Amino acid sequence: MSPTLPASDFSATSKPAFYKTLVAQVEAVLDLSLPLTANLANISSVLFYALTDAPVSRKINWCGFYLTEDATAAKPRMVLGPFQGRVACTIIPFGKGVCGTAATKRETQVVKDVHEFPGHIACDSASESEVVVPIVVGDVVKGVLDIDCLVKEGFDEEDRVGMEAVVQKLLVLWQ
Amino acid sequence: MSPTLPASDFSATSKPAFYKTLVAQVEAVLDLSLPLTANLANISSVLFYALTDAPVSRKINWCGFYLTEDATAAKPRMVLGPFQGRVACTIIPFGKGVCGTAATKRETQVVKDVHEFPGHIACDSASESEVVVPIVVGDVVKGVLDIDCLVKEGFDEEDRVGMEAVVQKLLVLWQ
Repeated sequence: MSPTLPASDFSATSKPAFYKTLVAQVEAVLDLSLPLTANLANISSVLFYALTDAPVSRKINWCGFYLTEDATAAKPRMVLGPFQGRVACTIIPFGKGVCGTAATKRETQVVKDVHEFPGHIACDSASESEVVVPIVVGDVVKGVLDIDCLVKEGFDEEDRVGMEAVVQKLLVLWQ
Repeated sequence: MSPTLPASDFSATSKPAFYKTLVAQVEAVLDLSLPLTANLANISSVLFYALTDAPVSRKINWCGFYLTEDATAAKPRMVLGPFQGRVACTIIPFGKGVCGTAATKRETQVVKDVHEFPGHIACDSASESEVVVPIVVGDVVKGVLDIDCLVKEGFDEEDRVGMEAVVQKLLVLWQ
């Protein structure tokens, strides 16, 4: 049951312009009266189809969230949240793979070739590159936004900046 | 971050055979140690891609869950849960549209043409037909499984039986 979103122009020919539109779209969809799951489910969809449709982006195959289960645990881990794409890993310990590294280092990971990432968790062989942005609220890593691409070098520095701006807009969901 | 599922044969040439495989796949993905969101996120993906790939099924464009917020409320409503597809309605009151009707009547709705459904909630104009299965545990409607199709008459009696078998397998998530 999918409504039509307010029209958005994702035809921008520069990534900064594309991400400016995307951040506005994300903001338009957020509804703080709803549960986190409803918001992240719709945000995953906004991001997935915008990135799929946009001329400036490469073909992505997965977009979604992993959410920290208990940030105070001795060995914290993340659990699969809402996403778009094929069936996903359900548990990712902090420090493991690209997602776990982003969570532990609290730094966005832009991986041009996932097969060369040390400790990469063997996943869908269709994924060739990946960007993972940690979701940090105050001193706590609440989870990560994870996006996989079907080609190598699917994401660059402009994507990092753009994705981080998206995640900044989402932080209000945890506040 | 998507792992490869155990290989499943969705090439069945009859719907009963297809749904038998699908129910087994759903069962294989369920993990009762995980939160409801993680399970429903992966189940949405299993269903979406199986229905998309299977020769026996029509082209679907949305597959996911609406979850009852407070079943004891005077006017209960459902909130968007995990799904695959384009951005979705976030709130559906019991009794409204195809989903709300399935919840109120506690009966699967197979709608051959959504445009002719009384009280149909105006949604993605791409959706032409729909099947909605209520998720009933004991005496409580926990939500619905909603699947939209891009063509009219996308679902038939065999799909109803198959989808209900899928939902039966999911009930353990609420027990």
